[in-house]
Amino acid sequence: MTTTVRPPQQYEAIAAHLREAIRTKELAAGDMLPSEAELCDRFKSSRGPVRQAMATLRSEGLISSGRGRRSIVLDSSYATETFESILSATAWIESHGMKPSSGTQLVARQPASAEIASELGLNENATIVAVERVRLADDVPVLVERMNFRMEAGRHVLGLDTDTESIHAHLSEVGVDFNNISRTISAIVADEEDARLLKINVGDPLIQVTIKGRTQASVPLEFSDFRYAAGRVSLGLNNMRGNPSPLWVEAHV
Amino acid sequence: MTTTVRPPQQYEAIAAHLREAIRTKELAAGDMLPSEAELCDRFKSSRGPVRQAMATLRSEGLISSGRGRRSIVLDSSYATETFESILSATAWIESHGMKPSSGTQLVARQPASAEIASELGLNENATIVAVERVRLADDVPVLVERMNFRMEAGRHVLGLDTDTESIHAHLSEVGVDFNNISRTISAIVADEEDARLLKINVGDPLIQVTIKGRTQASVPLEFSDFRYAAGRVSLGLNNMRGNPSPLWVEAHV
Repeated sequence: MTTTVRPPQQYEAIAAHLREAIRTKELAAGDMLPSEAELCDRFKSSRGPVRQAMATLRSEGLISSGRGRRSIVLDSSYATETFESILSATAWIESHGMKPSSGTQLVARQPASAEIASELGLNENATIVAVERVRLADDVPVLVERMNFRMEAGRHVLGLDTDTESIHAHLSEVGVDFNNISRTISAIVADEEDARLLKINVGDPLIQVTIKGRTQASVPLEFSDFRYAAGRVSLGLNNMRGNPSPLWVEAHV
Repeated sequence: MTTTVRPPQQYEAIAAHLREAIRTKELAAGDMLPSEAELCDRFKSSRGPVRQAMATLRSEGLISSGRGRRSIVLDSSYATETFESILSATAWIESHGMKPSSGTQLVARQPASAEIASELGLNENATIVAVERVRLADDVPVLVERMNFRMEAGRHVLGLDTDTESIHAHLSEVGVDFNNISRTISAIVADEEDARLLKINVGDPLIQVTIKGRTQASVPLEFSDFRYAAGRVSLGLNNMRGNPSPLWVEAHV
């Protein structure tokens, strides 16, 4: 579960440079990106890495598709979410200039319910670590996290102060690395427990995101249920023509 | 607003081939992808396009990140959403093997409200075309679409039979091309009108997706409000380590 450290490939370095230029508005919304030839010249690169860097920025929704014309920087004041920030509310709360805090309700080593066991690829009643935590932005509750970890990950969580320490930063430090994450997004209404924790009314809408984090070998380490107070948080994304969207719609009729 | 037609680049052809192999389960979940060298050999390609193709599949959530190891096909039975299908419910309903149908409530040339005008970059009361339509999967209502078009696009919608014809396929045919789309995802509860149209109860949760479609020059052509019955539809995505996610979280505290 350790990560092979490697230097960034050239296309990643080019993408990082352009991403930073967009973030600092050196390249502002509506600006044309330099041509491929100019980028090759600036980065002492052949066309392959420059094209791969542009494809990366396009898939992140930062620039328009070229289609024979120069790409344009898109109107978006949003930070692209890093892989790490998917699991960590701290990052996006701070990116909005707000103060993150946490109120832990529960950290428990306990038997898995049938549903949780199934999601984690375990037998029912196998021991897991469950965490319930309210996350606040500028002291306003925005999110209830109910996380369930396999023991490989969970044993590293038991000793943490989950009010002040980042669970996923700690897991990463001890070598528990998530390789891929699946999310399902739906809507529910707040029950009494959600309403109490989020200081909203029973029946208010919640964005529900269930999350499964897996290792490179596809072993599920975490299955979690995040519930966002809908008036206080939204999700969003940009998509470009020519780039498939990773967001799919599933019907359960 | 016409599109420059160009042959697919080599990386796109390689990505399309691998995507199809994953779709048909020739490459099944858990399988290792061929090595870069094998792919170069098979597609008579240099490493650049092969790497770009793999980066594309990674950004679509189809394969794991390599990080010095071979990429693995991810456990996902979901079709990646094409750019075109973002605006068209027909595609994802059919991709689930269900019969799509539509019940148009309204097609109107009318003055824009202040909100719609602002979203479309128009003056208040500028003329727009509004469409309200219920979408059904196997005759079960799953989605209410409330679409608002600038006249450049909307004039092509007025004459359509929106119960049987695809609005966006027609717009594309007449040369109205969307270059990029921004979506915001939230949760709301059904009001009386939504409940009646979706045959659910007032107060039931809805996934609300607001959509803005723009031209290459960033002119907004469409601003729409899609409301999905939460028990009947969900959204989802996969993310890989090393690939930023285009889905961001926004706080409104």
